[in-house]
Amino acid sequence: MARYEATVSAPVNIACIKYWGKRNTALILPTNSSLSVTLSQDHLRSTTTSSTSQEYEQGDRLWLNGREEEISKGGRTEVCLAALRQWRREVEDKDSAAPKMSEWPLRIASYNNFPTAAGLASSASGLAALVYSISQLYQLPQTPSQLSLIARQGSGSACRSLFGGFVAWEMGERDDGADSLAVQVADRDHWPEIHALICVVSDAKKGTSSTSGMQKTVATSTLLQHRIKHVVPPRMTEISRAITAKDFTTFARLTMADSNSFHAVCLDTSPPIFYLNDVSRAIISVIEELNRAALASGAGLVAAYTFDAGPNAVIYALEKDMPMIVQTINEFFPQSLDFPDPFGVLAQPSARPEGFNKAVVREGGWEKGAVSRLIHTAVGDGPRRLPDSESLLDVKGVPKTLV
Amino acid sequence: MARYEATVSAPVNIACIKYWGKRNTALILPTNSSLSVTLSQDHLRSTTTSSTSQEYEQGDRLWLNGREEEISKGGRTEVCLAALRQWRREVEDKDSAAPKMSEWPLRIASYNNFPTAAGLASSASGLAALVYSISQLYQLPQTPSQLSLIARQGSGSACRSLFGGFVAWEMGERDDGADSLAVQVADRDHWPEIHALICVVSDAKKGTSSTSGMQKTVATSTLLQHRIKHVVPPRMTEISRAITAKDFTTFARLTMADSNSFHAVCLDTSPPIFYLNDVSRAIISVIEELNRAALASGAGLVAAYTFDAGPNAVIYALEKDMPMIVQTINEFFPQSLDFPDPFGVLAQPSARPEGFNKAVVREGGWEKGAVSRLIHTAVGDGPRRLPDSESLLDVKGVPKTLV
Repeated sequence: MARYEATVSAPVNIACIKYWGKRNTALILPTNSSLSVTLSQDHLRSTTTSSTSQEYEQGDRLWLNGREEEISKGGRTEVCLAALRQWRREVEDKDSAAPKMSEWPLRIASYNNFPTAAGLASSASGLAALVYSISQLYQLPQTPSQLSLIARQGSGSACRSLFGGFVAWEMGERDDGADSLAVQVADRDHWPEIHALICVVSDAKKGTSSTSGMQKTVATSTLLQHRIKHVVPPRMTEISRAITAKDFTTFARLTMADSNSFHAVCLDTSPPIFYLNDVSRAIISVIEELNRAALASGAGLVAAYTFDAGPNAVIYALEKDMPMIVQTINEFFPQSLDFPDPFGVLAQPSARPEGFNKAVVREGGWEKGAVSRLIHTAVGDGPRRLPDSESLLDVKGVPKTLV
Repeated sequence: MARYEATVSAPVNIACIKYWGKRNTALILPTNSSLSVTLSQDHLRSTTTSSTSQEYEQGDRLWLNGREEEISKGGRTEVCLAALRQWRREVEDKDSAAPKMSEWPLRIASYNNFPTAAGLASSASGLAALVYSISQLYQLPQTPSQLSLIARQGSGSACRSLFGGFVAWEMGERDDGADSLAVQVADRDHWPEIHALICVVSDAKKGTSSTSGMQKTVATSTLLQHRIKHVVPPRMTEISRAITAKDFTTFARLTMADSNSFHAVCLDTSPPIFYLNDVSRAIISVIEELNRAALASGAGLVAAYTFDAGPNAVIYALEKDMPMIVQTINEFFPQSLDFPDPFGVLAQPSARPEGFNKAVVREGGWEKGAVSRLIHTAVGDGPRRLPDSESLLDVKGVPKTLV
């Protein structure tokens, strides 16, 4: 039987300028532009195989991490599939020899190589992998920015995972969302020295989902509109310039300020939304003190923290400073899970900026496991087409590994 | 020898609309108006005796809680004493029979009946008591609002402690601060049912002082100016109306929103300022859930939390709901110190709003002492002149009790 498939991987991205608030919830049009760093797929990725065949039984099917998920009528996944089919139809209309894949059922299997317990949003890499795999399967001529329009409708920040490097999601102005898409500010190779340390922070309490949280902020915060109109736009310009100029101090300053601004409008929501807990605050204190000491000794900033809709910290730093950062976090926040140390930073000599004041950390340090694990990664490339040997589906279009 | 003295007590006040930011640090002129509830002196008070005599040795002297404090040249206390002496001089100029007290040394002893460990700002009640005691000693004709101009220069929020009931500190417009003063919105007897429960929350880490914190916010927050210009002014009008109308639901909604707005601009500061900790957040969650359940069952809001520059919660509620509130806090936050229960609320039957979801509190509840003590009080009256038998000074102008 004629059967086609494409396997890809797509990266996680972590925003420096935060997306918080939709102006159109159906189309996922944001209230402000945002900007993120794409993290390396060597460490964190969603892998997706999409396959289609005239012989498959009617109806699309989707498996996430080996478990079948319903593709609900009018749901986000269906919206993405319909849009991709429409583009495939255009291919078929232009080339009568092209197989009529747009009419055939799809089989999609996706797998994240990081546990849900790591508290990383898997929807961004997952949706980007889904859209990219089908674009490869369908041999679509659309650019990554055009594909990002579809990924955006699956999960807002997924649109930024269609590029490597440093990526802006331009909010756009149009009501139909045709200009609300991702563009690359700089690719990975422009500034490969940007590394990231994810500190997975345990939290007893389940937080507010970002989907519901952001709309509560839109509805009730008295500060959000000011953030949207007057705070974020100049930051987008400034951080893009800082990336172009490889100016880490400005990049770090803006990243921390915007994380704090985002959590401030969460707190200004009614009822207030809290994502940071005492451990998150403690990590912030350590990074702020490292930066204070570095500045005092005449150097630039050495690290930037940023927090999404949860207590986990992501710390951006230059490769040269990562040994010091990792060793510092290790000392004050002993983890419950082993650190694989992919860059071998634990063995490297390092020194904290002179004058670092340990008193910012609470007496006796934190109990083991307050930070459960560390993940060290770096800025990475965009979605990758993988060889068919990496396929997650068997010839019948069923996942090779089922849960 | 001719010796005069006056003993007074002055109350603590806790703001519903928060003061955060000075437009003039020397004169203590705020960037926005604020509004507070004066708490009963039956429970919390500063008591101050001021005395003067031609026979005292040269130089003013001041004791706080039995320990002598230096009155530093050009410091805040000296500014207040100089202004009060100036008004006394006007009295003496008009009445040649009046003793020339303005030229005599002062002896001042002040005592707070609440421990510093309670984490309550003692500067407001302390400065109000100092100013009021000297105004009594000097037999000044000035009104409480006029006296508040002087107390303000000692410690900003002290100006609000010169009245009982519900008190606005109008920010004023003048550069010399002559219109930045306290006015009474309603007296205690207008709405005596307003009760307050102070939950003293332990914090391992010393927080940022409000004096330095607020100026860091002024210097670095991108949201503060919006709060000052567009958020606080309508809230001042609305909460004054709610107090006049005894509309607890509106009063509570604005109080919570403004506490959250204040902590949001603290978080938006660089470096961020955190006063709320995980226990503070947990208290917020419980109150929000009580209110949610109350609204869902058709009632109004039952409680309002507010937090100053520290982790302690102050919960405002109507007298009728206080048994339920205290019993709820008691259940989820067992204290390390006995609760004196001055209103006998523990013995009263009470029921939480139907549908209250205990799941908002973390599994197993909080460890004993996370909230170290509770203080139950209510809206109270303004500064009181006390009989001379309550004097803190002996005939030589030295405190009867020294540390």
